[in-house]
Amino acid sequence: MAGHDVAGKPTPTTNPMNPDEFRRQGHMFIDFIADYYANIEQYPVTSKVKPGYLRELLPPSAPFEAEPIEEIMRDVQSHIIPGITHWQHPSHFAYFACTASTAGILGELLSAGLNAQAFGWAASPAATELEMVVMDWFGEMLNLPRTFLFSCGVRSRSNQELKLEPKPSKSANVGGGGGGVIVGTTCDALIIVLVAARDRKLTEIGKDGIGKLVVYCSDQTHCTFEKAAKVVGIQPGNIRAIATTKTTSFALSPDSLESAIRSDVEIGMVPLFLCATVGTTSTTAVDPLEPLCRVAKEHGGGMWVHVDAAYGGGPCICPEFRHVLDGIEGADSISVNAHKWFLTTVDCCCLWVKDSSAIKKSLSTNPEYLKNRASDSGDVVDYKDWQLTLSRRFRSLKLWLVLRSHGVGKLREFVRGHVAMAEAFERLVEGDERFEVVVPRRFSLVCFRMVVVMTSAGNDDDDGGGGNNLMNRKLLERINGSGRVFMTHAVAGGVYMLRFAVGGTLTEPRHVVEAWKMVQEQADAIYPAEHANGCSTPNGIRGVSDQSHAKSNGEMSDSSN
Amino acid sequence: MAGHDVAGKPTPTTNPMNPDEFRRQGHMFIDFIADYYANIEQYPVTSKVKPGYLRELLPPSAPFEAEPIEEIMRDVQSHIIPGITHWQHPSHFAYFACTASTAGILGELLSAGLNAQAFGWAASPAATELEMVVMDWFGEMLNLPRTFLFSCGVRSRSNQELKLEPKPSKSANVGGGGGGVIVGTTCDALIIVLVAARDRKLTEIGKDGIGKLVVYCSDQTHCTFEKAAKVVGIQPGNIRAIATTKTTSFALSPDSLESAIRSDVEIGMVPLFLCATVGTTSTTAVDPLEPLCRVAKEHGGGMWVHVDAAYGGGPCICPEFRHVLDGIEGADSISVNAHKWFLTTVDCCCLWVKDSSAIKKSLSTNPEYLKNRASDSGDVVDYKDWQLTLSRRFRSLKLWLVLRSHGVGKLREFVRGHVAMAEAFERLVEGDERFEVVVPRRFSLVCFRMVVVMTSAGNDDDDGGGGNNLMNRKLLERINGSGRVFMTHAVAGGVYMLRFAVGGTLTEPRHVVEAWKMVQEQADAIYPAEHANGCSTPNGIRGVSDQSHAKSNGEMSDSSN
Repeated sequence: MAGHDVAGKPTPTTNPMNPDEFRRQGHMFIDFIADYYANIEQYPVTSKVKPGYLRELLPPSAPFEAEPIEEIMRDVQSHIIPGITHWQHPSHFAYFACTASTAGILGELLSAGLNAQAFGWAASPAATELEMVVMDWFGEMLNLPRTFLFSCGVRSRSNQELKLEPKPSKSANVGGGGGGVIVGTTCDALIIVLVAARDRKLTEIGKDGIGKLVVYCSDQTHCTFEKAAKVVGIQPGNIRAIATTKTTSFALSPDSLESAIRSDVEIGMVPLFLCATVGTTSTTAVDPLEPLCRVAKEHGGGMWVHVDAAYGGGPCICPEFRHVLDGIEGADSISVNAHKWFLTTVDCCCLWVKDSSAIKKSLSTNPEYLKNRASDSGDVVDYKDWQLTLSRRFRSLKLWLVLRSHGVGKLREFVRGHVAMAEAFERLVEGDERFEVVVPRRFSLVCFRMVVVMTSAGNDDDDGGGGNNLMNRKLLERINGSGRVFMTHAVAGGVYMLRFAVGGTLTEPRHVVEAWKMVQEQADAIYPAEHANGCSTPNGIRGVSDQSHAKSNGEMSDSSN
Repeated sequence: MAGHDVAGKPTPTTNPMNPDEFRRQGHMFIDFIADYYANIEQYPVTSKVKPGYLRELLPPSAPFEAEPIEEIMRDVQSHIIPGITHWQHPSHFAYFACTASTAGILGELLSAGLNAQAFGWAASPAATELEMVVMDWFGEMLNLPRTFLFSCGVRSRSNQELKLEPKPSKSANVGGGGGGVIVGTTCDALIIVLVAARDRKLTEIGKDGIGKLVVYCSDQTHCTFEKAAKVVGIQPGNIRAIATTKTTSFALSPDSLESAIRSDVEIGMVPLFLCATVGTTSTTAVDPLEPLCRVAKEHGGGMWVHVDAAYGGGPCICPEFRHVLDGIEGADSISVNAHKWFLTTVDCCCLWVKDSSAIKKSLSTNPEYLKNRASDSGDVVDYKDWQLTLSRRFRSLKLWLVLRSHGVGKLREFVRGHVAMAEAFERLVEGDERFEVVVPRRFSLVCFRMVVVMTSAGNDDDDGGGGNNLMNRKLLERINGSGRVFMTHAVAGGVYMLRFAVGGTLTEPRHVVEAWKMVQEQADAIYPAEHANGCSTPNGIRGVSDQSHAKSNGEMSDSSN
């Protein structure tokens, strides 16, 4: 075939993008997904398949002949769906939620449909310009300082409560000041700002100084920070994960940061970077930004401060939660995952920086084959120079659709609804004396555990020999084993705890009540077993009374009707 | 609202994922995209908007109240579409194509619809397992050595021509041998393998040796390699972009690589990494893998060899092109962008490695909150440890849909059709004596230019003072200014050339003929102007005869009917 004349015109059936065939199949897929959501509660939340199950079901090689879409869809239903852990199931309370929505899914569809490359302004102007606009919109919703935005425009309609001051001009700054970019995930965001910070510092201290650079975080910081730091060449021994304690609810202490920095500086090390977290993964701890930024500035010699607000940034669109970002004006960058609480589907991580010129200095490329008049003029943003990769999807479409389809008002209601459900769950936990809330709930995550076994000193017996940790591990296994609900766990300060993370798009109060019933049922089953094994100790068993049990069991049912 | 009772049950209109509303809006979006493709030729290929156009059209802040989808869709049509450079337009011959298709778009839709996080096996087993299967399928289609695959299964149905030997076992290797992973783009792939190579080498030479590490590529290697190398901490001065020449069609010479390595080793530098390219961006040059891998092995002390086959890997599913990967068995990793020629929509970069344990050693994380029984057992692949980020989309769905919807046979036809159209364009260029094909066409890219002005020595007058380069730059501006076709340019060996990259899903022979007519029309307009300005030189004007012009103009019209 090759080496001969031009191939014939494709027929409708061989054209991979025939509009009529797209329409036919597209409607099938939409109905498939709509049905999936209509029936989602019929699926177990977690998959029960065994490793390797799918390889046994699928042929060892790709087919040579085309297969009809109907057959493929049958395989999706029979082979793929049983292997899915249903993150959109309303009883998925594991990890943090990643929320789907009509607007988010269809935004992704539209982006795939247009399939425009958006690496530079010239490659598809609308993609770049919409991203600049929505990143300003979203930044304004979070009441970020104007220094993180391209432009604040005229007085906000959506943030009147927050008393934003208008910027004088409506035009956007594209020259290297503040602004936002959508990347895939927090790890992408961290690598980007770490590289910028690293290169800025190496310009000061010389290129051979990389081995002296030290980065700081807490022992609660997400594991991707350590990974990102190692990726950019920070030596593993130069990553300081500062210990936190329960007394500060596992938040990073500014005093501890100051001592760590002082110790490093004394031995000739160079502080490079602080990753502060608003809403840690284990327990949603909030590192105090204002004093941390002050320490970083006074003792860290201009170190870069990044705020990882992947989860905790979400609620900041509500004025009553915004205080957790107090002090953000002292930071250099902040990232928030819209795919967590903002309905955009994975992936959509929003990164704002104050000094985009630092980013661009490290990440710009300017090969001849991408040169164009708009870029040469300096009048446009080329997002390829704000991120790691060249190719990029038109991700701003889905964020734009989400923001418009719901409006700031409804999005606040959405967040507040989740927080209220978590509050209700917290009260249920507190109402059963076998249980405790391990750390004060701040947003929509409740960290709790059964506390039956106490040592003589009143402390946990956490050596794994039948103590509370082991018991709670068993409890979680039993809960998840039911398939009707899915939670995960964390360990902080040596304490194993169950994480009940509310945040699903479809989660309603009744799902919370059902989850709590499941927790109690499994606790009922475990407690006598533990007791019979002689695990109780002098301080004995805490408050397993039928009365308190019954009370907490019923507390929420009423309000959910 | 917060701080009070559980929020009420959401109503159908406030539930962001109401199945009925999803169905209604979903059908609208499918029809919108189907209509877009049905009418795509009515749009100019490139957008004509001015920088900042969209900020003027959109409000400065997100709306407080929800907006109806009908209004948002009107804005998509009136504000977004005019700002799109239509990458799926059949007359988009710029850069390399990124191909959309019914299967690719709907695969992305399904992935967004399920919105399952796929960071580890346990987080959604089907996502991990399908990725392992399709990466083996695709690797087998490319006839990659078995060492790059999890498992080759039984005798291939699709690659009988390629005489693959079967692997003894059907079960997949998950322990650290070969295998494939889908990442976003080539830059992601490069950072991943660079980090693995770096850490392996630093274990040998000590952690302070990072400043001695040297990476090699050619002056034709994609700019993301330099970017990726800098991201992982390679000093910019240690990136050797070895010069290529027209005599080797801009391929990297093994002799040049050997001398570069020898020079570095002599002064105590440490060779780390070679990035070879199969199908460079400027001219689709193919670096000779077999001798390059030999040089790397014999002189580079176990340096890592990566093959960037982002574009050039695509045609290797056809036996007649597979020879460009000869020698791949000597490399450590290879990446191919399925989103270029394989209809998957952006982004879908397929990376295969021989030694996944090196990757995992550098990129693994194992925080308590992600621990689970499947991962602990070692029986599963956790793709978070094969990539930079934690979050990941269910990208294998779209590749699976594409491979099944078309089958290997149709995908080969698709590739061969593009190559045949490029061949036809090449003949048109060759038939007009004003033009030359600058480097021999290898796949579906034709690099050509007008050659009217010659210096007395017969060489190009490339100083920009009215020489060929300036003329061809003008020619390209005029062609693209029409809005009816879009091409880009490259400069190699000092020669400015137009790139005519065939590869669009909807491109048919008639679009190629029309593009050539446009080239000729603009050349007709330019030539007298250049001539009048006195730019011709002693060797004069080459072959502008009415006869050859007419001949080449008509050559292809017939075959397109």
